[in-house]
Amino acid sequence: MTLADQPPAAALVFQTLLVHGPLTRAETGRRTGLSPGAVTKVATPLLADGWITELGEPAPKRATGRPATLIAVRAERARFIGVKVTADELIGVVSDLTARTLVARRAVLDSRDVGTVVLAIARLVGRLRAAAGAEQDGAIHSIGVTISGDVDGQTGVVQYSPFLNWHRVALAQLVETATGTPTVIENDVRALTVTEQWFGAGAGLSSFALITVGAGIGCGLSIGGRVVSGAHGVSGEVGHLPVGGSDRTCTCGNTGCVEAVASTHAITEQARQATGDPGLTITEAVRLAHAGDPAVRAVFTRAGHALGLAIASVANLIGPERIIISGEGVASYDLFADQIRETFAAQAFGAAAECDLLLRPLPFEEWARGGAAVAAQRLFAPTK
Amino acid sequence: MTLADQPPAAALVFQTLLVHGPLTRAETGRRTGLSPGAVTKVATPLLADGWITELGEPAPKRATGRPATLIAVRAERARFIGVKVTADELIGVVSDLTARTLVARRAVLDSRDVGTVVLAIARLVGRLRAAAGAEQDGAIHSIGVTISGDVDGQTGVVQYSPFLNWHRVALAQLVETATGTPTVIENDVRALTVTEQWFGAGAGLSSFALITVGAGIGCGLSIGGRVVSGAHGVSGEVGHLPVGGSDRTCTCGNTGCVEAVASTHAITEQARQATGDPGLTITEAVRLAHAGDPAVRAVFTRAGHALGLAIASVANLIGPERIIISGEGVASYDLFADQIRETFAAQAFGAAAECDLLLRPLPFEEWARGGAAVAAQRLFAPTK
Ligand SMILES: [Zn+2]
Ligand SMILES: [Zn+2]
Repeated sequence: MTLADQPPAAALVFQTLLVHGPLTRAETGRRTGLSPGAVTKVATPLLADGWITELGEPAPKRATGRPATLIAVRAERARFIGVKVTADELIGVVSDLTARTLVARRAVLDSRDVGTVVLAIARLVGRLRAAAGAEQDGAIHSIGVTISGDVDGQTGVVQYSPFLNWHRVALAQLVETATGTPTVIENDVRALTVTEQWFGAGAGLSSFALITVGAGIGCGLSIGGRVVSGAHGVSGEVGHLPVGGSDRTCTCGNTGCVEAVASTHAITEQARQATGDPGLTITEAVRLAHAGDPAVRAVFTRAGHALGLAIASVANLIGPERIIISGEGVASYDLFADQIRETFAAQAFGAAAECDLLLRPLPFEEWARGGAAVAAQRLFAPTK
Repeated sequence: MTLADQPPAAALVFQTLLVHGPLTRAETGRRTGLSPGAVTKVATPLLADGWITELGEPAPKRATGRPATLIAVRAERARFIGVKVTADELIGVVSDLTARTLVARRAVLDSRDVGTVVLAIARLVGRLRAAAGAEQDGAIHSIGVTISGDVDGQTGVVQYSPFLNWHRVALAQLVETATGTPTVIENDVRALTVTEQWFGAGAGLSSFALITVGAGIGCGLSIGGRVVSGAHGVSGEVGHLPVGGSDRTCTCGNTGCVEAVASTHAITEQARQATGDPGLTITEAVRLAHAGDPAVRAVFTRAGHALGLAIASVANLIGPERIIISGEGVASYDLFADQIRETFAAQAFGAAAECDLLLRPLPFEEWARGGAAVAAQRLFAPTK
């Protein structure tokens, strides 16, 4: 039995248990709007097939004296492999149905050639299978691969990936052929947003945005329980909001993009100009700023201002409950956090300023887990 | 019987007929994903209670020789009154279940005092009832009032309306008491977005944005069949995206907001500076620009550039299928249309540029119709 064969009410019950953890049948009914009878009716086949389980510990006895049994998702019922592709390495995890990471491994990428990358993914998948326990081989339900760029999750095609210089690569099919396991692909920021929506800092929220700061500036949006994918494949391109002033040109050809002042590369470049040292690295720039160098500090302050404007733009347009800020760049977040908050507070319109800003460092293993979450989501929340 | 008492499948069938017009039962099944049996089952009580009807003209005979009867929404089954409140007048309409306008009336507002406005709305409602036919009195299902500002449609409270200078006014309840008819309220741009989503240029689209240009710059967003309302009541504040340069201060206190260069007021002010004529009106500014005055033309070009950046920002973030451009300002749209399209094309990121830009002049009667559509939506698409 797959979850997709179940009636919509079963998917609703399953998703509610996934987000809100073990619940009594009564509480499940309240949260889903289903009658107690309907909850019992849809829970029975889910229990029989091992997708959910009754917990040994009953909830505290109620006034009636009858213990209320808790039902919960059976995490071990299915396993997934998630792989994040960066320019230099692959990061892979095996996770269970609740996106808990069981095993994690990395692999260096020697080349960005399609064939090499697919082979490296297949090898990493093999290592992950072995590490997760050979007897579990058959239990990997599917693989989710995530990659930055214009990725069409529906067709499984990477339309364009700038850092790999890939155009129209049918990656899902290639990985599926190389591994023999069903494979889905997704844009990496959207995949991380899927994890946060179901299992992270976005669980149970009506809407949230995830802003990632690093080599690029990305954004995932979750509205009404769905991650926005964009009618033409593009969404969340917060890095190209034109709020950064007119003196710096972006990789996209325009001036003023957030990425042109706040990406790791842009910060390094501006710090080189500020210090007159053409060989300065981002690590050295962070060190100089921490040591109080005013010119380098000003570079981070400017980046923080542009990020604050971008975050306020998201809040003014979408009005999310929360904006999560993550990405490699948050390792030096203390250098621009104050400026981000100050600019956000000034530019957020009216009640949009009530939006909760949450800093959340997420290592690459969490991004890989995003791939596993996307694969799992195809199982428990299939879309047409 | 109300539609809310029906099972979810009935609401789905009804909404599908509303958006896609008369359909055969087979086509209704295809579009909703319901089996023919399920369509017939949910259609029967809808037919019995007059919400839908079988059309006299059967569809062309199919190969089997059996004519396929069309089913359609019975527009006359319920009537709604919509009222838009502006700073100087009320615009009201009576519409049917498909938001077709049956009658329209306007009323001048002498004062912006809450009591005066509520009384004026009640009087206008009375005139609309009379004009729609006295015998139809009982047939007005509900009233929808729309107003610009921070409007909480769930609680029926106007949190803040800048142009009326209202704070925390329980408008829905006041109008309901004064008219004796159930009343809902909504932000005016969101209400217009509701009309476009169900009955206008957004019908059947997976997502679209509506940008309104005039005294303010507004934006409504429809994603996955729902108009985005913002977790804290604020959304679509495209007028305060900081893309307009640093030399002009906005009413919100920041510099660079789109409204600070592209609202009617901002264009008038800049045209006064450009001509040195402190009494210049917007009508005269439009005339001078049409006559080729280079300084005044430059004011419109700058406004068009800021609007193009704002529209590209919406496309980059949300990736809607279409962006509809409307509002009073589009009367002089020829003065900035080229600049809007040029800037949009340059700033839209990758495939986001494929987003369809549609100019659509919508008179105030259409905005009033938005109120009627919001009232109707509470009936056919109730939310928790
Ligand atoms: Zn750019
Ligand atoms: Zn402003």
